[in-house]
Amino acid sequence: MAEYQAPITDMQFVLYDVFKADQLWSQWESLAELVERETADAILEEAGKLATNLLAPINRSGDEEGVKWDDGKVTTPSGFIEAHRTYAEGGWVGLSGNPEYGGMGMPKMLAVQVEEMGYSANNSFMLYQTLSSGACLAIDKHATEELKTTYLEKIYSGEWSGSMCLTEPHAGTDLGIIRTKAEPQADGSFLITGTKIFITGGEHDLTGNIIHLVLAKLPDAPAGSKGISLFLVPKIMVNEDGSLGERNAVHCGSIEHKMGIKASSTCVMNFDGAKGYLVGEENRGLVCMFTMMNYERLSIGIQGLGCSEMSYQKALSYAKERIQGKAVIDGKRSDQAADPIIGHADVRRMLLNIKAMTEAGRAFSTYVAMQLDIAKYSTDAATKAAAEKLVALLTPITKAFFTDIGLDNCVLGQQVYGGHGYIREWGQEQLVRDVRIAQIYEGTNGIQALDLMGRKVVHNKGEFFNCFAEEVKAFINSEKNNTALIKYIEPLDRALNNLVELTNWIIEQAANDVNEVGAASVEYLHVFGYTAYSYMWALMVKTALEKKTEGEFSQSKLLTANYFNQRLLPRVYGLAEAIRSGCGPMYEFGEEHF
Amino acid sequence: MAEYQAPITDMQFVLYDVFKADQLWSQWESLAELVERETADAILEEAGKLATNLLAPINRSGDEEGVKWDDGKVTTPSGFIEAHRTYAEGGWVGLSGNPEYGGMGMPKMLAVQVEEMGYSANNSFMLYQTLSSGACLAIDKHATEELKTTYLEKIYSGEWSGSMCLTEPHAGTDLGIIRTKAEPQADGSFLITGTKIFITGGEHDLTGNIIHLVLAKLPDAPAGSKGISLFLVPKIMVNEDGSLGERNAVHCGSIEHKMGIKASSTCVMNFDGAKGYLVGEENRGLVCMFTMMNYERLSIGIQGLGCSEMSYQKALSYAKERIQGKAVIDGKRSDQAADPIIGHADVRRMLLNIKAMTEAGRAFSTYVAMQLDIAKYSTDAATKAAAEKLVALLTPITKAFFTDIGLDNCVLGQQVYGGHGYIREWGQEQLVRDVRIAQIYEGTNGIQALDLMGRKVVHNKGEFFNCFAEEVKAFINSEKNNTALIKYIEPLDRALNNLVELTNWIIEQAANDVNEVGAASVEYLHVFGYTAYSYMWALMVKTALEKKTEGEFSQSKLLTANYFNQRLLPRVYGLAEAIRSGCGPMYEFGEEHF
Repeated sequence: MAEYQAPITDMQFVLYDVFKADQLWSQWESLAELVERETADAILEEAGKLATNLLAPINRSGDEEGVKWDDGKVTTPSGFIEAHRTYAEGGWVGLSGNPEYGGMGMPKMLAVQVEEMGYSANNSFMLYQTLSSGACLAIDKHATEELKTTYLEKIYSGEWSGSMCLTEPHAGTDLGIIRTKAEPQADGSFLITGTKIFITGGEHDLTGNIIHLVLAKLPDAPAGSKGISLFLVPKIMVNEDGSLGERNAVHCGSIEHKMGIKASSTCVMNFDGAKGYLVGEENRGLVCMFTMMNYERLSIGIQGLGCSEMSYQKALSYAKERIQGKAVIDGKRSDQAADPIIGHADVRRMLLNIKAMTEAGRAFSTYVAMQLDIAKYSTDAATKAAAEKLVALLTPITKAFFTDIGLDNCVLGQQVYGGHGYIREWGQEQLVRDVRIAQIYEGTNGIQALDLMGRKVVHNKGEFFNCFAEEVKAFINSEKNNTALIKYIEPLDRALNNLVELTNWIIEQAANDVNEVGAASVEYLHVFGYTAYSYMWALMVKTALEKKTEGEFSQSKLLTANYFNQRLLPRVYGLAEAIRSGCGPMYEFGEEHF
Repeated sequence: MAEYQAPITDMQFVLYDVFKADQLWSQWESLAELVERETADAILEEAGKLATNLLAPINRSGDEEGVKWDDGKVTTPSGFIEAHRTYAEGGWVGLSGNPEYGGMGMPKMLAVQVEEMGYSANNSFMLYQTLSSGACLAIDKHATEELKTTYLEKIYSGEWSGSMCLTEPHAGTDLGIIRTKAEPQADGSFLITGTKIFITGGEHDLTGNIIHLVLAKLPDAPAGSKGISLFLVPKIMVNEDGSLGERNAVHCGSIEHKMGIKASSTCVMNFDGAKGYLVGEENRGLVCMFTMMNYERLSIGIQGLGCSEMSYQKALSYAKERIQGKAVIDGKRSDQAADPIIGHADVRRMLLNIKAMTEAGRAFSTYVAMQLDIAKYSTDAATKAAAEKLVALLTPITKAFFTDIGLDNCVLGQQVYGGHGYIREWGQEQLVRDVRIAQIYEGTNGIQALDLMGRKVVHNKGEFFNCFAEEVKAFINSEKNNTALIKYIEPLDRALNNLVELTNWIIEQAANDVNEVGAASVEYLHVFGYTAYSYMWALMVKTALEKKTEGEFSQSKLLTANYFNQRLLPRVYGLAEAIRSGCGPMYEFGEEHF
């Protein structure tokens, strides 16, 4: 069975060659002293080793064993506590955390690579870690100095962990109708009462304390989503000296039995007058929570990407080893009794689909992370503002496209295995079960598409979209005399024009009928995703051509780009045609016609 | 949680209104005395009750409990033995079996409806039954009178069951390299020795005997697939008086632990000089086995269809009940705090995708079954020959397209549930796990595509294809003045032209490079599938327009057909463009570039 091998060469290609990360870092004063290529490479190497040697080995056993609930206590599978200790001691939880409070302050461009490796190796394990990192981001941005001092360092160090408590039994997507209450106390704290469900890592045995970020309503809160506040609720109260005090009134009522991510606890959390502290302003809780949520959305996209990479590695290894059927070589049947299945068209198709989408995804996650870094570190207001728009625009695409494609890629990898793909011991079916949740949680992919189409495109009449389209257009124009690149630029140019025209068409239509937004949204997100990937491939090919002395790696990039443009990108034209039929065919139905 | 409700109205619409099954039956002498609409309706009603009341209730428990192996014995989950007894006593195993040996002799058009209901309710249970039915078909067609007399009646009655033993550890898709040996004995029997894997229903406790159909090689057999013979190997020897005798030397070495269909046993079968009887001629075993295999391929397609229907019913029920988010009604936000999610665009999209594909699939499965019935019962040689070509052409499409779409439909249904779709108790995730195998077994969908593209299209230079294309073209021409139908004919006409041109293009290309067959195959199968579905929708709409007094049912058909043509059918143009890029982008890769 294939071991995980961190794709460090490709990560370095994307980071340094395509996006010149080291040059960017050296330009930003606050970052320049923290990281340079040597540091970053050491981090990549070490993260790769951890993924291969620490996290991958407990992935299958974690799935078989699962988490166990007993009277409010949750036990993680064998080896998780030890692995968490090693992970925490390495400072990985605080990799991109604020150095003022003990974080390592590494750029997002590097952190996304590390997250990808972790998800490739072990989805369940990584969820505990990325929720902690996300919680820290919200605390760091919105909480009081006192809360930051008390909590951040302990979470960065992995001694404590974080959770995100939004969903209630009747309120998932629709947070405006939550019922959890927060009663103000004389000491400035609040008593939180209510039930939250689907809380990933809400209870477990990896850390000494769990810090919940909880959405709740103040007694006088306005109705709907503008009346929600955010509270920090520790599982165990923290004394003034930082030591642990009494148990807070928050308990895990049960855990869910799920399709996958079985080593990750998904908890029902009961808050029975638990003591909590306001984070950010009253009634502005959703905004504060979205600092964490947007972190998690990108992270969950990377879950889809990490699973894709693992699926590719496993399927490729099997396809080279499995002997079955005669291949056709140079137009003739092989004279062997049977050949490795990688010679067969359908197996090539499946492997190349995964490869083309995964390498483009890795470039795109790094590109989005670069925008996050620019927004954070750049001192130029216009540059910063443009990057913020791109982050807003591209976050829902990263979450939804990476995870839709992630399922496809894991299903394809499973298919390469034939019957063995369906058998548990080979591990491919676990990837399918694990990655499936990524399309659902942190806002379903339908919600991501609506966010993209409605808030990020139609609402601002294409302003954010134009930031992206103009960048791509400028690239196309700058390369139009690059004859070696023209083969990759032409498909991109056509796809971009299609996307631009489609975007304008939807904005026009939506002015007359708001249902056009919802009707177009999912297919639009996919058209956008494929087009963005074509851009990523063009950037990679340009870089590969410049580096062509490196032989097979560069050659593989050129071939894969061409495969993507010829065999996968054309899907956008079918999708665009479907969108242009408008919302009519979807909305003519009465409920009685379903 | 939604109970299964057999879609009998739609089945009757397809059977009697669209395809005039009752008129066909009355024309065929050997069938006319066995079935008329009244009988068929009674069978549909009864099968629907069995599915709802007998099979669906043990579906979830069967998944949780699974099959158990202990020292060669396999125990099915609670309730399976009792359910099998009831199913067998009703004569369902022999529903379409040969009446000369105790079968009910019902037409395939009816049998596919019954199979669909069974798969909707319980995948694992139905697999035991459809393997028995398929084994009977091969025995009936190829075995000696003595074998038929000894075995058929007992399998039709459900006292015994059947299995299909092809795969070996090193030989799945590629049967030419199997190693199982058959040694001729003085009494005309053979001793079979070898190991078979992935044998569905190879061992279980539902029946008193299990009749294995086993592929093996005679000592002097030619190499490859032309040296394979088929043997009937009973688990327990049968005495001359039909009573059970000694245990044969065939044993279940272990069972697989799988992603899904956990109540179906997937067995490693060890044949240690087990006594067997030749079925059909020596070295012609693959042809004989394909009588069973083609039955199973259609049946597995229907597994995908049945799962799609169940997914739709469950998702629709949830979408009507779950209150979340404000809907937009007539261009305005609802004034409720939240509305049923069926009002939201993305939920509509998901439900309509499932509905449009499932109803077209039901019509198509009935259409293919009609060709099987024509091939079997028609006394006109030309009619029979044309039907046989259509069966050969359409079987791989039914198997692969129904199951690829089946996974999509189950994933979509799961997505409608949001987070609850990932939780085991809701049952939607089981559908995804259960249906996933259908793309893999009985020939992977990649193999189906190759069979379609290579043997069924390119090899005969489009002869079989033209049977289909000319029928559709004739329908289009006959309806071109039907103004009410024109909206549904135009997209069909365009899609058919696209398919015809694409088919001709591939046949031409393949003459120069055989790799074009494999490179085009999977996308081609999908283009064909969507186009065939558009034909099914046009047939249904024509019928619905003629029946328009029936109100909402007919109206729903019109709306769904339009949704299909506008929102789903355009995918074929993206796929066709990808195919036309040829095999180059796929074959330029050396192994070192993966």
